[in-house]
Formats: sequence, C-alpha cells, structure tokens
Amino acid sequence: MRKALHFHSFFEPTPWHKTLKKTLHFHSCTFLGPNLPDVWTPKENNTSPHTLLPQSFQWTNDGDSATILEGKAIAKEIKLKVADEISKMKSEIGKFPRLAVVLVGDRKDSHTFIHVKKKACEKVGIGTVVSELPQSCSENELLDVVSGFNDDQDVHGIVVQLPLPQHLDEERIMNVIRPEKDVDGFHPLNIGNLAIQGRKPFFIPCASKSCIELLHRHGVEIRGKRIAIIGRSKIAGLPTSLLLQRHHATVSLLHAYTKNPAQITSEADIVIADVGIPNIVRGDWIKKGAVVIDMGTNQVKDSNSGVFRVTGDVCFEEAVKVASAITPVPGGIGPVTISMLLSNSLDSAKRAFGIN
Amino acid sequence: MRKALHFHSFFEPTPWHKTLKKTLHFHSCTFLGPNLPDVWTPKENNTSPHTLLPQSFQWTNDGDSATILEGKAIAKEIKLKVADEISKMKSEIGKFPRLAVVLVGDRKDSHTFIHVKKKACEKVGIGTVVSELPQSCSENELLDVVSGFNDDQDVHGIVVQLPLPQHLDEERIMNVIRPEKDVDGFHPLNIGNLAIQGRKPFFIPCASKSCIELLHRHGVEIRGKRIAIIGRSKIAGLPTSLLLQRHHATVSLLHAYTKNPAQITSEADIVIADVGIPNIVRGDWIKKGAVVIDMGTNQVKDSNSGVFRVTGDVCFEEAVKVASAITPVPGGIGPVTISMLLSNSLDSAKRAFGIN
Repeated sequence: MRKALHFHSFFEPTPWHKTLKKTLHFHSCTFLGPNLPDVWTPKENNTSPHTLLPQSFQWTNDGDSATILEGKAIAKEIKLKVADEISKMKSEIGKFPRLAVVLVGDRKDSHTFIHVKKKACEKVGIGTVVSELPQSCSENELLDVVSGFNDDQDVHGIVVQLPLPQHLDEERIMNVIRPEKDVDGFHPLNIGNLAIQGRKPFFIPCASKSCIELLHRHGVEIRGKRIAIIGRSKIAGLPTSLLLQRHHATVSLLHAYTKNPAQITSEADIVIADVGIPNIVRGDWIKKGAVVIDMGTNQVKDSNSGVFRVTGDVCFEEAVKVASAITPVPGGIGPVTISMLLSNSLDSAKRAFGIN
Repeated sequence: MRKALHFHSFFEPTPWHKTLKKTLHFHSCTFLGPNLPDVWTPKENNTSPHTLLPQSFQWTNDGDSATILEGKAIAKEIKLKVADEISKMKSEIGKFPRLAVVLVGDRKDSHTFIHVKKKACEKVGIGTVVSELPQSCSENELLDVVSGFNDDQDVHGIVVQLPLPQHLDEERIMNVIRPEKDVDGFHPLNIGNLAIQGRKPFFIPCASKSCIELLHRHGVEIRGKRIAIIGRSKIAGLPTSLLLQRHHATVSLLHAYTKNPAQITSEADIVIADVGIPNIVRGDWIKKGAVVIDMGTNQVKDSNSGVFRVTGDVCFEEAVKVASAITPVPGGIGPVTISMLLSNSLDSAKRAFGIN
C-alpha cells in the first residue's frame, strides 16, 4: 500500500515582484542549508541542537511497504510555479529567460535529452537556442559557440550536452562557460562554492537540488542524519555529498574502491544511489526504516519480451520492504531534476534582470 | 617504545632541470591521487584492484605503543629539497620564488604566524614581501594591495593572514587572489578542482598535503581505507576530505551535528582530527590498529604551573595505546604544513618561469 504524501506549501500567494525576490532568496538558503556554527559539545553523543523541519516524517516501515517518494507531482508543481513566474515576468517587464543548448555530434541519447529539455523549456516559457555542431567540429569552433553565448545578454543559461566526442577537451570547454550562466552547476567555481560552508555558488547541480527538494517536501530531516552516497559522479554523487554536508548531515561517500559498501550503507539513515548499475543496492544493504533515493537511470532489456525498460540502481522490490520511503525509477528523481534546470534558468534570468 | 620510521626516498639524484620538472609532475600526481576508473564490481566485498604502495605498514598495535608519525624530520627533508632547488634555480636562471604576505591589524597570534612563515621562507631562499595594514584599513585599501600583488610578476604566491578584522568581507578579499597565486589553496576555484576527479587545482591546501605526505612516507595505504575526518574547517578538514576521496578512500566527514562521532570514528582505519578542542578524540573512539592524524593545535594552560602548552584534538596518552601510528602535537602535522607552503611557493614560481 502506498502511503499518502505530505507536501509542504513552499509558495505563498504574494505580489509577483515580491514572490520573485522571495523565491530566489528562499532557494539559495534552503537548498544550501542553514549556516550554523560548528559548536562542538565535547561529549560522545551530540544531539542536533536545532530542528527546523516538522517531525512529520516517520522513519519506520510497518512491515507493509515504504512511502513512495513520487517525483512527478513535485516536478509538475515546480514547473507550474516557474511558468507562472515567467508569465508574470513577461507581462510586467517584457522579458523572459533563455537557455542555450550546445549539442555536438549525432549520439541518439544526447539528441533525446536535448529534445526533452527543449520541450520542457518551451512548456514553461523559457526560450531555447539550440546550436548543433557536427561530430567532426574542432575545439575552437565549439569554444567560439560557447563564448558567443557567454557574451549574449539574451542568453541566461548555457548547457553543453555531455559526453562530447573524444577529440574535444571536455574540461577546457566546460571551464569556458561563465559560472553565472552555468545552469548545470558543474563549473569548478560553482562546485568549490558549494563545498565551502557559507559560500554561495551561482547554481547547484540539478540532481542534487532535486534530492533536497524530495527530502524537504516529505519532511525528512537531514541534519544530524547519517547518509551513505553510493557513487561519486561529477553530476550527481559528488555535488550531492557536498550539498548534504552543508545541510549538516554526516556524509560517507562510497565508490568502486570502497571495500564494504553494503555494511557502510546499512548504517545510514538516508541512502543515495548514483552508480549506474541496475539493482546494485540490495534490500539487505538498507537499514530498516531508512530513506532511499535512487538516482540511477539504467536501460535494461527484458529477457522475455526483449523490450527495454528504465530501472534504477536500487533493487526496488527488495528495498521497498525495508525502507520507510523510497523514490521510484522512473518517476522519482528524474522529473524533479528537469524541473530544477528550468528553475535554475529562471533564477539566472532574474539575476540578470536585477530582480533578486 | 617508539618504532623505527620507514622513509621512502622521493627524490632521486638527477640533473636539476629534470628534477624540477619531475618533482612538480610527481607532486601533482601523487598528492591528487591516481585517476582510476570507477569500475564497480557488483559484489558485496569489493577489494582494492590496485596496490601502488609497498605494504610495509603494519596496521597493528602490539600492545606496547604506536609508531609516532614525527613531522619534523619530514619537514626538514622537504625544506632542504626546496632550498636545494631554489639555489640551483638562482644559479641557473638567476630567479627565485617570492611570496607576498598580507597582514591586517595587530593580532598577536597573526604576527607570530607571519613571523614563522617569513623565517621559513628566508631559510630556503624564498623572498618575502610583507604588507602590513592597520586594523582600521578599508576593504578597498586591502583589495588594492592584493590586486597589486596579483599584477606583480615577481610575486608568485599571495597569503592573506586570517582572521581579518570583522568589518572586512573575507570572502570578497579571498576571491580576489588569483587562483594561480593562491598558495594556500583556499580559492573556491582551487577547492572545486580539488573536489572534481581528474581536475588539477593550482594548489592543494598545505595541511591536506602534509596529511598525504605523512601517510605516504610511512607507507600507509589510503585506497579503499575507511577514513573518519572529525571537523570540516575550510583550511583543513574539508579540503582533506576532498583530497583523500581522490585517493580512493571511503571518507566520512564528521562535524558538530554528527550524532555519534565516537561510534563512526571507531569504524575508521584512519582517523583525522580537525576540531579545535583539546582531547576531544578519546582512546575508545579509535579502532585497534588505526592510524591517527591530529591536525589540532590548541593552547592549553597547565593547571599546576600556569604555563601554556600546545596540545592536539586527540587524547594522545589514550590513543597511543590503541593506534598503530599517531602524529604527535606539536611536531606532527604542523612542521610539514609549513614546509608545504614553501613547496607550493616553489611550484608556483616554477610554473611562472615555465619550468613545468
């Protein structure tokens, strides 16, 4: 049986101008976590000195089944909110956010991702400029395109679809994107400012933001909790570890060289999987009552039908019996992550228009 | 009884020009850890697929006492090596590294630190330019000084002594230091590039480097080991967590909001303390045979004599009976950290002179 979802209402009815300012302010504070002094109490069992979130979340599995942390409804709500703000922005100041997307080569999956992002942008009123370059394009040609978008005042966000063809230096190209237009949040300056307590990156990577969003929406307290992040990719695991640390969780980052991932994971209150291997996280890795967030998106061929389906890194059927809450794949982190790209693009435009 | 130390010889007798290139190359690779692909073996007990270091280190405490990881001899060796390189650099190309140090106000401890750094620089042949500004100086005055050093081709490293007076925006000032002259390694761009696998920061923070240096020198394998870092300061705990992660350790970062620091620490193969509270890490926090690195430097008044002495964050007397190896305070991490500032300054000059 699927338990009911508890949504906080993040958004209050206020005049749009105030809302715009308020939302951005809220975003940077909430996503980055509160800046709390590290006041150590020199005793063995520190207790969390502050509790901001309602203690509505129940860290239990009653033997029936976990709460399903659905992402679709949350994504829809965020998209509606973004669309509403953009609509008001257009009518009040005649401007709107614009996202530039750079695509090199003819990888089918990259084309699909770009198509999904473009469609999502269009739906909420974000303009898109897609620059497609041939597989054979030179590094300088690509750099010229990115630099052009850097200098274009009408472009507020730049996304270079990865992976790039082998002959192009990904690091060099990604470093050229202006940090204030880096809506993916992958620029080292943004990652550095995410890592350092008290600093504000221009953007937080979308998958990490959606992780916080899902936990917040369901009243799952992060502070003081023990979190195992399995996998340390640049786009998900690593930035999520930095972000959750800023929310004052005790984070352990696991990877392929971790000797006992199952044991360490089984000690965690919150488990986040970002490995890229279907079902690697088994039910017996999960502590009874833990919250599980599955960031994996793996294409798996059904041995009977031959049809491909999307599956996560967590063995859902096993984990759902142990966890107190778990994200499904598909329909969990994925849709929220896309809505965060829209939200980041809106934030960028607001910053450019001076309404923050 | 103190066990004998096992030193590797990092430095081979080669022509100085080759040595200069080789050392820098060696430095960036070794300190950042090898770039290994995250190839997951989907089984519960992953074993470390590579072993680069000699397995000389014994993770045991024979009931007698731990190996003492002395820093003084290592610091001396590094300083001699730096001095030797600078001497050859001077005679061959007539140039040498120069470090700019900015000091605001009249804090006694800051003046002491600056004095120690200046003296250490002079001993190895690094030129120093100390700019002292009054407590009342404005942010713009300070920024002008830093910008001047940024533009000065004869200055290869800039250190702004912290803490700054309250009225100055530390973040703004630290961000102005050019990342390629940020020998402390605290700039968010350097921290970001430290966090991201495969990227190279211009500099790694000195305390973190000295931690790696101590572990390497004693043949302590890092890869696959479980590490608890207690404390997440910007200058030590946080960058050390990022650096050890790049060495493929499984890192847990503990802080004031961690609920059970003793328990988590007791699971670690390597314990690193960066809290700033004397003796907070007790003997029963340490797993038998673990390696303990104490980054704390606390001034403690002796209740009998009234004399101040320096003590670490780890209760040495207790830990030494359980650990396989432990750094003393003073004389452990401290001296190595200063030698790393000299080494970073030399590296910066070499980069500026095009000998890397």
